[in-house]
Amino acid sequence: MASSTAQVSRHLVTEPLARFVASFRWEDVPLHVRHEAKRSLLNFFAVALAGCNDPTIDAAERVYRRFSAGPLATVIGRGERTDILNAAALNAMSANVYDFDDTHMPTIIHPTAPVAPAILALSETTPVSGRDFLLAFLLGVEVECRLGVAISPRHYARGWHITSTCGIFGSAMAAGRLLDLSEAQLGWALGSAASQSSGLVECLGTMAKSVGVGNAARNGLLSALLAQENFDGPAYPLEGARGFLQVFGENPDMAGITNGLGQSWEILKNTYKPYPCGVVLNPVIEACLKLSGQMDLRPDALQNIESIELTGHSLLRQRTDRPDIQTGRESQVSAQHAVAMALMRGRAGLEDFSDSAVMDPALRMLGAKVKFRDDDSFTIDAARVVINRENAPTIESSVAIARGALGCPLSDQDIETKLRDLCRYGRSDCNPEPLIDAVWALEKLDNANALMRLAAGTALA
Amino acid sequence: MASSTAQVSRHLVTEPLARFVASFRWEDVPLHVRHEAKRSLLNFFAVALAGCNDPTIDAAERVYRRFSAGPLATVIGRGERTDILNAAALNAMSANVYDFDDTHMPTIIHPTAPVAPAILALSETTPVSGRDFLLAFLLGVEVECRLGVAISPRHYARGWHITSTCGIFGSAMAAGRLLDLSEAQLGWALGSAASQSSGLVECLGTMAKSVGVGNAARNGLLSALLAQENFDGPAYPLEGARGFLQVFGENPDMAGITNGLGQSWEILKNTYKPYPCGVVLNPVIEACLKLSGQMDLRPDALQNIESIELTGHSLLRQRTDRPDIQTGRESQVSAQHAVAMALMRGRAGLEDFSDSAVMDPALRMLGAKVKFRDDDSFTIDAARVVINRENAPTIESSVAIARGALGCPLSDQDIETKLRDLCRYGRSDCNPEPLIDAVWALEKLDNANALMRLAAGTALA
Repeated sequence: MASSTAQVSRHLVTEPLARFVASFRWEDVPLHVRHEAKRSLLNFFAVALAGCNDPTIDAAERVYRRFSAGPLATVIGRGERTDILNAAALNAMSANVYDFDDTHMPTIIHPTAPVAPAILALSETTPVSGRDFLLAFLLGVEVECRLGVAISPRHYARGWHITSTCGIFGSAMAAGRLLDLSEAQLGWALGSAASQSSGLVECLGTMAKSVGVGNAARNGLLSALLAQENFDGPAYPLEGARGFLQVFGENPDMAGITNGLGQSWEILKNTYKPYPCGVVLNPVIEACLKLSGQMDLRPDALQNIESIELTGHSLLRQRTDRPDIQTGRESQVSAQHAVAMALMRGRAGLEDFSDSAVMDPALRMLGAKVKFRDDDSFTIDAARVVINRENAPTIESSVAIARGALGCPLSDQDIETKLRDLCRYGRSDCNPEPLIDAVWALEKLDNANALMRLAAGTALA
Repeated sequence: MASSTAQVSRHLVTEPLARFVASFRWEDVPLHVRHEAKRSLLNFFAVALAGCNDPTIDAAERVYRRFSAGPLATVIGRGERTDILNAAALNAMSANVYDFDDTHMPTIIHPTAPVAPAILALSETTPVSGRDFLLAFLLGVEVECRLGVAISPRHYARGWHITSTCGIFGSAMAAGRLLDLSEAQLGWALGSAASQSSGLVECLGTMAKSVGVGNAARNGLLSALLAQENFDGPAYPLEGARGFLQVFGENPDMAGITNGLGQSWEILKNTYKPYPCGVVLNPVIEACLKLSGQMDLRPDALQNIESIELTGHSLLRQRTDRPDIQTGRESQVSAQHAVAMALMRGRAGLEDFSDSAVMDPALRMLGAKVKFRDDDSFTIDAARVVINRENAPTIESSVAIARGALGCPLSDQDIETKLRDLCRYGRSDCNPEPLIDAVWALEKLDNANALMRLAAGTALA
């Protein structure tokens, strides 16, 4: 039995967001915002091409292929085609499976994984220009992140996987814009998205995380397709007394959601990881990579290291003091592993945070020498590494703002390099160069489906 | 970045539930529990055959058919076939679209709508005996309702649509049992279900509710199919610090979930509605139906009615004092409409709570005479109706326990009649008699797929 006691917040949310998505014009998107959207998409293809042959995607695909309505859309990097809902799900899983995708700093949402796959799939069945594609992507990310800001940080702290719970709204709005939905229909799509929003932090580190992220992309697209058939929803799915913001949030900031809408852009707070680790490790790895070139790495010399002191914000120790790890996944949040790896191998890529990498006894021996010094005058983007050695001078390296932080973003070239490296890592046999060119030229493409043709790859033997 | 600070409740939930579902034996299910399961299924077919041609299902089906992998499973009452995930979703929507389905009293979960469609669809591609089907159904409902009890009533009060949020676990466990999943796999299925659990009370009264209910059936089945491919999940998806019970509940009763598991059965607290209304209206309608036969219903005589006094628990007034309604849906929670309808028409079926019914001026005139008297010595299953008339004696009728309440359940014959009536209402052209016989004989059927052959119906012109 429906209750009728719902109260509506004084701040309307659904209607202004629907109007924004329905009517915002390309001409009014500043150039640097357009450019950041392309950087996000480039990073998306990098991480999707890295993850596309992970066992998680293999297992999901074995099930999803049994429920495909036809080979209409590309599964990135796998040389396979499926229907657009399945493609949206599988490509979102690929992009997020290593948590190496982009991070919207105010919310820690990974914004692109749920949004881009929905409209990439749609672009393969509904012809759409690169410009319209890019605008739809931006509008979707904007809604997704603004909803996330309104319920952060308590929403994630309670246990919600915010990329999934908020991502579905971004997917619905991006797809809805491409489908030319009316304001009313966009409101209904937000309703069906609210009805389907899900995802728990408890599932991180397991395959079950990925089904939630896949659903965010898939079910956002489904919400838009349902709205197109006038499948209706409540008037206030977001701001209603039993709507998304009240139920998933704790004292959500309703007013903030529409403040400066269309003037300030959340995508400008998006960041791209240089290393496949927890972000607090970024400055540590960077400092160790610098030291690696200056050190004698022969076994005898390493034996002579007395200690490796890490100085940083206390969160560094709280989140990454993990000396005794068993899996590649754990190594992504282990300072001991990251330090030893960066010093000894002079690099920190996905292959360095694998199950086999953590079993290397030399890395374990070196990692055991790590000591933490908390200093909350450091930001989480800063760190100092001091290596004390017997019979050799102490050496040290400091990083004030790590690469990849908002204050020191990866360059366009860095992101291109990331795409090339990850494309190779993912064994997709996709040629990164024309894909990179197509993303940079996206607003000039007559048909956005060029992207997925270039990201298709070939099936593994 | 995954957090590692999760704490596990002292009470394990996932493992004992998985063991229960994996190993509970048919021989240990008491006869009256088996019988109640069949009553629930009979009521399920009644309401699904009523709802199957509602505009909500029409709109959903227009989208879902574009994503069908093939005609493997039956869409109840529509003479259509689709893949098993779509069938699970659409049939769950049909069963719940009018909120006329069964009600588990401790939680107000509608238990059968998310669970039965998942395994009915599965039974069409995986041969399974009627006995195994019935056992899987019972185990799924048991898990679904026990999780609901642990988080009631605060979970629903906060705004969660409990039928959807808990139903997905029932669907996953019923399907997992039929697929012969191991205990570990059942635990993973609970993880993927936790990752997908969703549904908001705000969406009730709109089509967006139905996509959530459909997902509960569909995604529970998907969770089981993924687990069959060893798609893994967290160790404690339910009881973990950021697992389902903590995040969706407020101080959940962890210990209660496994108390008496396999000894006491939640399905024995399931009820079936005689009228398509909020349950608090049941005793009022019953009293009015009794009075209807004793009254002069000619217009002049109706004019002479001075007032119609309803005495009942204060919840009756709080939830149903709605004199000025516009839609059939609102009429389901309007005492004014229900009283006038039951008195004047001597019946209270789905067609009496339609958009056209609420526009009848004679009903509005009579409904305007309703007055409420709160008396909290009444239970919500009791009511007294007193009709004061000019130039005629006052007449009254009292109901101590309304039909359909736990203390006065519908008889087997009542549920059969409900199925016959609703089958006619839904225009499905399905013959109810062999379907009724098949449900009663379910544990003797060699292949449970007989049910869906009998419930298929034919496509509307």
